[in-house]
Amino acid sequence: MTEKSPEAESELRQDEVAVALPPQHDAGLYFIGTIHTPWQTRQECPKRGSLDGPICSIVVDERWRMALTGLAGHRRIQVLYWMQRARRDLVLQTPFSTMRTTGTFALRSPVRPNPIASSIVELVAIGGATLQVRGLDCLDGTPLIDLKPERGASE
Amino acid sequence: MTEKSPEAESELRQDEVAVALPPQHDAGLYFIGTIHTPWQTRQECPKRGSLDGPICSIVVDERWRMALTGLAGHRRIQVLYWMQRARRDLVLQTPFSTMRTTGTFALRSPVRPNPIASSIVELVAIGGATLQVRGLDCLDGTPLIDLKPERGASE
Repeated sequence: MTEKSPEAESELRQDEVAVALPPQHDAGLYFIGTIHTPWQTRQECPKRGSLDGPICSIVVDERWRMALTGLAGHRRIQVLYWMQRARRDLVLQTPFSTMRTTGTFALRSPVRPNPIASSIVELVAIGGATLQVRGLDCLDGTPLIDLKPERGASE
Repeated sequence: MTEKSPEAESELRQDEVAVALPPQHDAGLYFIGTIHTPWQTRQECPKRGSLDGPICSIVVDERWRMALTGLAGHRRIQVLYWMQRARRDLVLQTPFSTMRTTGTFALRSPVRPNPIASSIVELVAIGGATLQVRGLDCLDGTPLIDLKPERGASE
């Protein structure tokens, strides 16, 4: 495991509730590549990716390169990635934007037991193991977990 | 880690290519609950969940129950779950349904480096830590990873 413990970095806001995390993980993820975006801090990230946003690049690790075969035929792709800076122990959160305390599963906040994000992007180009896409809103350097055609696309 | 090694269970089909998996995981997942469906084998599962399909239940572990606060106000929910029986080492696959060999990332097959599925379901009811939903297509007993309001819903 190469994870840090971001819990220590942030304080609880009003009415937020944290729980003890389970003593061990139940399954393991492989990071399969890296996402490059123009955004270096969370404050710079757009709140939601837009299909007419800037082009970002996704670099897939050499090990998985052959798994991109046939992807160029799809225009919209679902991207899963790991929000590695998010704490994982909050069950109630008070987002800055609303200051209304809400359950973690009623929010799309990065702060959640398993900080996996899912975005739909438009595929602009593929060259080698690098994809150019539009529609992301994550930090530069975010670890990639998965790529798949959008649900309902031809399969 | 409680994972089994399903690689040994299945043979390669024509033109399929497997790679060596990385020596270690990069991040760990917590299973946060269990999904109950009418389907005990992969053959019984529908190919794609339907919002007018049967009601299935999602039981969230007690530790995370408070994180459901406010979820009842959302009609459509994104469910992430772990397809624990799928092998993880194929980069080229030959699905039975088409027999056309294709890259893993150009398919929504369960067989992928990180076997995470994403479904949109309709929330029928919540009682305690149990959700009744329509739209799933997974095996009975599938581990739950995350719940969040559908993208674009009020937030």
